Amino acid sequence: MRPFLEGWVGNPSARHSLGEEARESLQAARTKVGRLVGGRPDGVIFVSGATEANNLAIKGVALRGAGGHVVTTVAEHPSILAPCRDLVKRGFDVTFLPVDREGRVAPEAVAAALRKDTCLVTLAAANAEVGTVQPWRALAAVTRAAGVPLHVDGVGVLGRVPLAAEADGISLLTVASNDLYGPPGVGALWVRAGLALAPQILGGGQEGGLRAGTENLGGAVGLGVAAEIALREGAAEAARLEALRNRLLDGLPARCPAIRPVGARHPRLPHQAAFVVPGVKGESLLLGLDLAGISASSGTPCSAATGEPPHVLRAMGLPPRDAQGAIAFTLGRWTAAEEVDAVLTELPLVVERLRAASPFG
Amino acid sequence: MRPFLEGWVGNPSARHSLGEEARESLQAARTKVGRLVGGRPDGVIFVSGATEANNLAIKGVALRGAGGHVVTTVAEHPSILAPCRDLVKRGFDVTFLPVDREGRVAPEAVAAALRKDTCLVTLAAANAEVGTVQPWRALAAVTRAAGVPLHVDGVGVLGRVPLAAEADGISLLTVASNDLYGPPGVGALWVRAGLALAPQILGGGQEGGLRAGTENLGGAVGLGVAAEIALREGAAEAARLEALRNRLLDGLPARCPAIRPVGARHPRLPHQAAFVVPGVKGESLLLGLDLAGISASSGTPCSAATGEPPHVLRAMGLPPRDAQGAIAFTLGRWTAAEEVDAVLTELPLVVERLRAASPFG
Repeated sequence: MRPFLEGWVGNPSARHSLGEEARESLQAARTKVGRLVGGRPDGVIFVSGATEANNLAIKGVALRGAGGHVVTTVAEHPSILAPCRDLVKRGFDVTFLPVDREGRVAPEAVAAALRKDTCLVTLAAANAEVGTVQPWRALAAVTRAAGVPLHVDGVGVLGRVPLAAEADGISLLTVASNDLYGPPGVGALWVRAGLALAPQILGGGQEGGLRAGTENLGGAVGLGVAAEIALREGAAEAARLEALRNRLLDGLPARCPAIRPVGARHPRLPHQAAFVVPGVKGESLLLGLDLAGISASSGTPCSAATGEPPHVLRAMGLPPRDAQGAIAFTLGRWTAAEEVDAVLTELPLVVERLRAASPFG
Repeated sequence: MRPFLEGWVGNPSARHSLGEEARESLQAARTKVGRLVGGRPDGVIFVSGATEANNLAIKGVALRGAGGHVVTTVAEHPSILAPCRDLVKRGFDVTFLPVDREGRVAPEAVAAALRKDTCLVTLAAANAEVGTVQPWRALAAVTRAAGVPLHVDGVGVLGRVPLAAEADGISLLTVASNDLYGPPGVGALWVRAGLALAPQILGGGQEGGLRAGTENLGGAVGLGVAAEIALREGAAEAARLEALRNRLLDGLPARCPAIRPVGARHPRLPHQAAFVVPGVKGESLLLGLDLAGISASSGTPCSAATGEPPHVLRAMGLPPRDAQGAIAFTLGRWTAAEEVDAVLTELPLVVERLRAASPFG
């Protein structure tokens, strides 16, 4: 990204040779993202991140028409749930399908929910809070047969679990740069040829008229390189992380039976481990781990401010007492075996201390 | 920005100490932007750029209510015109006020346009295509007296022409990072305390619930530093550029009377010179200059794709034959006197060649 942030770079929409050069770099980044998602590059719309991509997919498809019906699940990320709730306010009908105890939605349930006026099915390929991977190929077979576009948020899955937008029958796919070790503040929505979208950010004609604003060229280039690396190294890295991750999934409950794994074991995001510790607060677990130099999460950071027990775990049927003790670990490129060992040592100690301090422990 | 792009940086919304540290950096950037715009820092909403900020200001204010009336001018940037036209589609009434031959809107015209149901007046502090600075203080006096919020797009003006959002009576102010030599892909909307907005990108609770999505921390930090430098060096740099720019405004017509300056001489963006060359195409001027290594613009890059004569010049009353020969130069931190000399030499040569080739020259 350095030459684009530090050097002499044109505006990709400007009509001079500096602009032309910038345009070529932007197109190269588009090609790289297209290669990662398994879709034609001109379907790639650069946006500011996954949240904007989800908003553009959901509102962009729904608001082409005058109304209608949208299908999603109760266990989605706020960037899918909030645009869906916004559509309800605008007079749309939205079905929030239940998920099973592992957080999975049944293709049969999607099939049963489809109506004549259904204009979109939208969900994440994997649940970032509990790690469960959704059966998007089976879902796409259902939506395709009904002629309904399927939007999939690829965060977590892209670069780690094989996914190919065109071949898998996906109509719209969300790409986050920061999830691929690219810079934050950039992302993409891939859109299948022929699918019309109502743009959400209006102005100049950038991104084929679908997303106005001076292009974030450095960011797009960074995302392109991140996509290239993910495509080349993702499988091997996912295997490495899965082995480390499994030590958490197996090791923590073995050392401390109060720590119960949640989410599906397979298929599961290879770099994610999620647990509940009934009777303690996720917040307290985070604090205890943080003092030991370990950064974890409880629910999504995107709804950290609310302080409510993670809605995903509640949707999976866990009682509030269990759900509020949520704790999840995300492993990444720089995660080493010693760090996993530290979690195996520290979390049981934190849990013991908290349960000793609690009259309900 | 490097430590934030290359180092170990937390998610500003995460509940661990890495997240806390990231949050503090984000707040520091917010303070710096607040200082540049002359407004309280907690009014700063980080977004992906000026186009998104304009969309959030216009749709955010208008869509709080059920309908109403918005005032703007015919000579605005597409990122103001397009959201206003979108409001028309949604049943709003929008008055597009005319501008005078210099591109200026009269405060009296705004006063006369205000109605009981007017919910917003929106315009750019300066016209980026012709350089004319609008009388925003006089406009704010009008809107304040009527209790109507005034949205000003500060691109071009911020860091170059004194502006203080709170003191000047502005309710919403758009900030572009790339216009201040900060990174593209980030910007801000400053909002006066107590003014409610309907968020446009929905999801997590980031930016006080007004703009969802994982924060672009590196971008925000870059914008913060750019704002700091603009505040410290902007006035001296503007004076330097104004002197260089005046050599273009005076020198080009003196050397070649076919090159006519457009826009106000004062108040004018200090770093911008705009002209028309009647009877030739702006596109051809750009090409000729580009061959001489000079990058200029004709109309805004944001509407470069349309190929129509710049709407701003048409709005100023120029006939199509004049308006299509638009050419504008933007000077910047790295612009040297020799480069201005090169334009003084080359543009007249390009114009002569084009006019010799044209039967209508």
